[in-house]
Amino acid sequence: MKTFLDCIPCFFRQALDAARLATNDESIHEQVVRDTLDLTKDMDLHQSPPAMSRHIHRRIRELVENPDPYRPLKQRHNQLALELYDLLEPMVRNSENPLETAVRLAIAGNIIDLGVKSSLSDSDINKTIQQSLNDSFNHSAVEQLRADVDKAGNILYLLDNAGEIVFDRLLIEQLPTGKITAVVKGAPIINDALMEDADAVGLNKIVNVIDNGSDAPGTILETCPDTFRSRFEQADLIVAKGQGNYETLSHIDKDIYFILKAKCPVVASDLDCPVGQMILIKKCAEAAMCCRPEYNPSA
Amino acid sequence: MKTFLDCIPCFFRQALDAARLATNDESIHEQVVRDTLDLTKDMDLHQSPPAMSRHIHRRIRELVENPDPYRPLKQRHNQLALELYDLLEPMVRNSENPLETAVRLAIAGNIIDLGVKSSLSDSDINKTIQQSLNDSFNHSAVEQLRADVDKAGNILYLLDNAGEIVFDRLLIEQLPTGKITAVVKGAPIINDALMEDADAVGLNKIVNVIDNGSDAPGTILETCPDTFRSRFEQADLIVAKGQGNYETLSHIDKDIYFILKAKCPVVASDLDCPVGQMILIKKCAEAAMCCRPEYNPSA
Repeated sequence: MKTFLDCIPCFFRQALDAARLATNDESIHEQVVRDTLDLTKDMDLHQSPPAMSRHIHRRIRELVENPDPYRPLKQRHNQLALELYDLLEPMVRNSENPLETAVRLAIAGNIIDLGVKSSLSDSDINKTIQQSLNDSFNHSAVEQLRADVDKAGNILYLLDNAGEIVFDRLLIEQLPTGKITAVVKGAPIINDALMEDADAVGLNKIVNVIDNGSDAPGTILETCPDTFRSRFEQADLIVAKGQGNYETLSHIDKDIYFILKAKCPVVASDLDCPVGQMILIKKCAEAAMCCRPEYNPSA
Repeated sequence: MKTFLDCIPCFFRQALDAARLATNDESIHEQVVRDTLDLTKDMDLHQSPPAMSRHIHRRIRELVENPDPYRPLKQRHNQLALELYDLLEPMVRNSENPLETAVRLAIAGNIIDLGVKSSLSDSDINKTIQQSLNDSFNHSAVEQLRADVDKAGNILYLLDNAGEIVFDRLLIEQLPTGKITAVVKGAPIINDALMEDADAVGLNKIVNVIDNGSDAPGTILETCPDTFRSRFEQADLIVAKGQGNYETLSHIDKDIYFILKAKCPVVASDLDCPVGQMILIKKCAEAAMCCRPEYNPSA
């Protein structure tokens, strides 16, 4: 997905939020905004929004002299989500359609995203879970995912954020774990999950986990080393979680299931759905065009 | 009021909204955003936000080759507000405290501001009016205004936006009109009222109307000609309407009543009130400090 002009105000808001989270020093907040102006003026709108965010957050980490300012928050979110796991795991197992329930909860987990919202109360999380279980959803896409997973020999599951990965674990547990490799980021970027987060929530005990060698908030293949790009190339199926992965991979000619909540108006517009819609769509290798099942709010 | 870092994302959002209102040409939308980046990188945060907005909107008018892109909208807002006038005028006259009712409605009129929101449905307007009549308000400030108006020999009423000026007319009609000079902007800037708007809503038949000779969305005295600055200097009392006038005059050492709705978090924070609060505050000539009556939500 290219960068839309509406993304520009958001770059500044996110940069400011991140700067304030990283330090109380107001002179650094101002420097972050000024550097974001500098970075943005040369931007190529044909690149995806995470390409710009990557540069902005690199600069923030340099200015605050902290390689991972989101680390305490990621740890808190992992902990919070793990407490929910014990409640949600039997809910998935005992549901009528465990795969659909797990997909719905994986999307619920996508709301725990500091890139879009900088604070989130615990009651918000519970409300999001309930809503995700009850909202309209495309059942046929779940069955298509089930069939494609059955056919695939090896599957890459591209993870999104810390905390959220506990919800991904619920979904991964409903899939043939032997076929799956879960992918974290190669270096700190916002609250995206790293290997230490996968370890913290026990994902490494269930599936093989690798990192993509990149510090982009999404999957920008050009920023990943050859080893990861080969793995991506050779995978029969990709499951890509969250807005960042959608923004960076929606144009890629490969079988990819995108699982996300369309949180911002730009992504919702690109997906031709209302803001807040739970999304499970497949993009096909046969055509660059999206062949996602129709959005059907009454389904 | 100085420019806060939180104003920066807003500059871009407003520039984009204005560009889209002025033309459908997407290449100009992009140019507006890029020029805003250029203008913003050299900004002086000690200046008020309208100082930057003035430059941005000048650039937009040049790029779209239209000296007044908001003109059709201003005319529509004047017309819409005039239709409400016949309903609201007897409401003011027959109320228990006509001055307070008129101040409340003047604040309601302040919601018709395209600088903050680019679309406004008619039902929104009716809801805003009802809310403004019922919301908590500082009664004592109204009585202080009444007393100060009685004492003053000549009063400048700094108008804000087209459409909104019909609501200001309701308030001006409750004041000694002979003492009052209403002030419009000297040249088109966003949807701020010009002389033609004052004429269109009949303000010129009630009070003397002058323009301030400036195209700033507020009252930046340095951008006004000497003639207006003398009038400002000599006035016994200033009534300044809307956020733009608050942002540009809140530091001025003069008796000024600010009437506005605190629509954005930055202005609300500067006023130490919740977003959405109806504000009537007096700043005193004796001290640069604000001597506004306490904000009292239960009043």
